[in-house]
Amino acid sequence: MSVATAARPLDRVADFPAIPDGWAYLDTAATAQKPQAVIDAITRGYDTTYATVHRGVYQRSADMTRAYEAARRRVADFIGGQVDECVFVRGATEGINLVAQCWAGTQLKSGDRILLSALEHHSNIVPWQMVADRVGAAIDVVPLTADHRIDLDAMAAMLTPAHKLVALAHVSNVLGSVLDARRAADLAHSVGARLLLDGCQAVPRMRVDVGALDCDFYVFSGHKLYGPTGIGVLWGKADLLDTMPPYQGGGAMIDKVAFSGTTYAPPPARFEAGTPHIVGALGLHAAINYVEGIGLDAIHAHETALVGATREALGQLNSVRLFGPEDAAGIVSFEVEGVHPHDVGTILDEAKVAIRAGHHCAQPLMEILGVSATARASFGVYNGLADVEALVRGLERVRKIFG
Amino acid sequence: MSVATAARPLDRVADFPAIPDGWAYLDTAATAQKPQAVIDAITRGYDTTYATVHRGVYQRSADMTRAYEAARRRVADFIGGQVDECVFVRGATEGINLVAQCWAGTQLKSGDRILLSALEHHSNIVPWQMVADRVGAAIDVVPLTADHRIDLDAMAAMLTPAHKLVALAHVSNVLGSVLDARRAADLAHSVGARLLLDGCQAVPRMRVDVGALDCDFYVFSGHKLYGPTGIGVLWGKADLLDTMPPYQGGGAMIDKVAFSGTTYAPPPARFEAGTPHIVGALGLHAAINYVEGIGLDAIHAHETALVGATREALGQLNSVRLFGPEDAAGIVSFEVEGVHPHDVGTILDEAKVAIRAGHHCAQPLMEILGVSATARASFGVYNGLADVEALVRGLERVRKIFG
Repeated sequence: MSVATAARPLDRVADFPAIPDGWAYLDTAATAQKPQAVIDAITRGYDTTYATVHRGVYQRSADMTRAYEAARRRVADFIGGQVDECVFVRGATEGINLVAQCWAGTQLKSGDRILLSALEHHSNIVPWQMVADRVGAAIDVVPLTADHRIDLDAMAAMLTPAHKLVALAHVSNVLGSVLDARRAADLAHSVGARLLLDGCQAVPRMRVDVGALDCDFYVFSGHKLYGPTGIGVLWGKADLLDTMPPYQGGGAMIDKVAFSGTTYAPPPARFEAGTPHIVGALGLHAAINYVEGIGLDAIHAHETALVGATREALGQLNSVRLFGPEDAAGIVSFEVEGVHPHDVGTILDEAKVAIRAGHHCAQPLMEILGVSATARASFGVYNGLADVEALVRGLERVRKIFG
Repeated sequence: MSVATAARPLDRVADFPAIPDGWAYLDTAATAQKPQAVIDAITRGYDTTYATVHRGVYQRSADMTRAYEAARRRVADFIGGQVDECVFVRGATEGINLVAQCWAGTQLKSGDRILLSALEHHSNIVPWQMVADRVGAAIDVVPLTADHRIDLDAMAAMLTPAHKLVALAHVSNVLGSVLDARRAADLAHSVGARLLLDGCQAVPRMRVDVGALDCDFYVFSGHKLYGPTGIGVLWGKADLLDTMPPYQGGGAMIDKVAFSGTTYAPPPARFEAGTPHIVGALGLHAAINYVEGIGLDAIHAHETALVGATREALGQLNSVRLFGPEDAAGIVSFEVEGVHPHDVGTILDEAKVAIRAGHHCAQPLMEILGVSATARASFGVYNGLADVEALVRGLERVRKIFG
């Protein structure tokens, strides 16, 4: 076979030392490989400039504090937020849990409702279930359209003044479906609800401006954005963060500690108890520089072309069923008729193609799709048409083996 | 002056690329510098073996999962715990907050009491204040002895059956005082209370065996143990972790997610929602290998000798007041009469000596010591008598300037 559709080549694989020749790494939606520039920033943070932040009276520590806060400013610029609105967290999961506990946990009461969608990642379901249990709130679930998008018409019909929070994936981690986030925000706000967007799969593959989206909270993980593990961002509108109590107690988040009573620092420090993942922030800074150096529009066009080529080629294989919309961002889920996705994954691995097979932390969506698992190929700046061809060759082998 | 006391030289500074010749880094209690072996493990995790854990059906991800779980086994061996009792967290602060919310928050009720000491770090005060506020529990504070240890005789007299939890620093981050942890455990258990130990300053400077100490929870941060930022460990007795609800909701911590109800994985996965700080765990593994390669007993002897030399030399300077016990572990706090500790720190910085000046996230202790801040010198495996001499020379300069 050949893959006919022309993808705009980015040809950045040489920037990624952990991708050997001939390895088709198609699991970027799980975690992105790291460019040398990010690895160098991390190494330099440990072998040249290392010190703690916010505390030292010596020059090295003052310099590291400036670098840590420069990373925060870079994050703010990247998503169009204010610097004091950006909280460093472990990842999107912690960001959502923080909002669930500190905002919903204090703002919602018995009888209030939370609106999620049927395609959410577990990290955008379970935190809401935990807080809903605690405060006596209920959860409603927006269905999907026939082509596997969050159905905003259905959402418009479901929203009531009892809904205080809507939490949606900006881009689905399973299907690649892109949300019309601005319409979702307008709908949520029309009944007085707040909108949280899970931006994990969006920030690596499209331009994001929280002001233009008019969302209230936005979260993403650094490691899916070509950055280090253990670092992510919660962005929240300043007036919302201001009203929220701290998430964890400890150093750096306090104003004054006494056994008779403790007062807290303003955001973002209020939400960053303890020594932060200092070098993680530096690495994330380098990762943002890297993707912006390529350009998010160029990345988006590149991945859209790869998705198009993949859907076209897989559509020609009789036994393959594709999920998700045609214009998915960077992600294609599929199943091979009569073959368990794990077997697909294992055979592809032997052919040097790394995909993910499983429920992708989205078990409710699996039920809707009528499967226990899917196979998923997801793209990054290092992928090209050769990777799509390797995937298709691998799937032809799967069909032969299970033929 | 000369520093007469002989310290057992470890002479490991060559392992630390971020410490230039002639720089006396005496802020290890804030964060330790990183040996090349740790930096190499981190770099290799990103530039050679990188993949996600627990999910991939391809070989690279299976290998990374084994490496991540091997790090957990290394941690368990290091502190004498079982592997399923070791939870990876961001740091000690998160570990304490996790126990406060998931154990104390579900086990304590109105009228119960928590016992802390007067020398605790904010991270071992504020989480307890937050949960005590929520459940209606009260906090009692164990005073210090004249030589600045936690007064266990006073603690014995204070404990009642209303006390459900005792939380103490194993080694004080300000004073270096070493707790008789086994006696504290016996006292706590005698009234049915549980003991949590903050081991941040202990694990880098002495052998720790949670079984011998008979504590119930033990926490420490990786970055103070020569490891990466953003990773730490909560160890808890298996039967306690088993009873605790999850801390954060998300991927990896679930058994089955449905909108009709979600069930959770057993520990430790239950407490590790979301993609973990994978490379942080690998770096911590290398850090444990590094300190055990030297030997904790050798490190303890080395730092004890440096503390002795420092106390002896500073004791000869008329205007210096020393805090903490004679046999402090690796840490010496002091003040220079009539000079604010920040000025001491700044002048020392000009003399290439990095100390910390401030309240060290222990404001209640500052009140007891009758100061707003102290200067603190803390040692690591890279320090030697030359660093103590540089500190003393720097303090002589402080006295001249402020003379």
